[in-house]
Amino acid sequence: MPTRTTGTTGTSRAGLIADTALTLLAERGMRGLTHRAVDERAGLPQGSTSNHARTRQALLEAAVRRLAEREAQVLAPGELPADGAPGSAAAGLARALHRYLTGHPELLVCRYELALEATRRPELRAFFDAAGRQFREPLVALMTAAGSAEPERHALSLVAWAEGMMFACAAGSYHRSVPTEDELRTGCAELLRGMLGVQAADHR
Amino acid sequence: MPTRTTGTTGTSRAGLIADTALTLLAERGMRGLTHRAVDERAGLPQGSTSNHARTRQALLEAAVRRLAEREAQVLAPGELPADGAPGSAAAGLARALHRYLTGHPELLVCRYELALEATRRPELRAFFDAAGRQFREPLVALMTAAGSAEPERHALSLVAWAEGMMFACAAGSYHRSVPTEDELRTGCAELLRGMLGVQAADHR
Repeated sequence: MPTRTTGTTGTSRAGLIADTALTLLAERGMRGLTHRAVDERAGLPQGSTSNHARTRQALLEAAVRRLAEREAQVLAPGELPADGAPGSAAAGLARALHRYLTGHPELLVCRYELALEATRRPELRAFFDAAGRQFREPLVALMTAAGSAEPERHALSLVAWAEGMMFACAAGSYHRSVPTEDELRTGCAELLRGMLGVQAADHR
Repeated sequence: MPTRTTGTTGTSRAGLIADTALTLLAERGMRGLTHRAVDERAGLPQGSTSNHARTRQALLEAAVRRLAEREAQVLAPGELPADGAPGSAAAGLARALHRYLTGHPELLVCRYELALEATRRPELRAFFDAAGRQFREPLVALMTAAGSAEPERHALSLVAWAEGMMFACAAGSYHRSVPTEDELRTGCAELLRGMLGVQAADHR
């Protein structure tokens, strides 16, 4: 992770610092994330991280921004099917989730570390909420296209289910045994069928 | 929270220490939980917490055990309806979830802090997994009674949905606006209906 320097956070050093912050968060949690630890882990001269992100808050904001960029690459919410067919929606969601769960488990831990820290830092919460909207809005559109009578509530239910699966894989009951893409698609299709009524079963 | 000393962890001082550890975890996260901070917050002589839980691992184990006891009191998995009717299952689950979300938001944050820490401490994971079983097993029984063809997978899907809702309320998209018990019951009934097929709709 620390060698990955592409992205839109600015210079490649800023990207390296943010990626290294995420690596440390995944490996050591909030207690292990310090400016000095980022310098050491990234092989940068002491003080480099402080130059880029003077406060702890600034370092955490950089980590949240970078997390949002990397999650957007992995989950690609813009690629979700928009035709309103529950079967292809379930398949698209399962594919994105499975890609995340199998390819980027360390990002998952960062996600939850930063979300919990945001409960104690209102300034961080705003960053986190903005990052969340890029996923929620396509899901509301998807539920609307699928004919949901309550697209907002249904999108939140879908987010909760996906979030719970992600958490179970990162740190809960699925720890060490990620479900298959098939199992995810079946589970997601069941939820969609329950929310949309029986017509969803015809499209599986 | 620190004044709550009942429970089965042994003496009331052990209970006070474990409850205070949970309070600190919720308020300050892993970085804020130290033996000295527990002494100070609980108004105990310096060294008291170290006497009860010599290592950080022991302190974390005490917190996980206490969390499991308090979650069992709040969620009361033994009180879930076992008649196999999806409607009463959804109502029972929604009631338990709503009681947790509205009455004990600080326990939720502890839950996720400790689960994340367990990803880095295999010894803690065993405690956490044992605590999880007290909730998973009644749900497998519930899905079996409801006629599920795959009670294990369906119970995990139900746990994921509930976990995602809990996380959303603790630190995610529902932060500051817990869903009503009615919304939880509807969402849960939809998932059950999708998993069990249309017959569930008849029981709502």
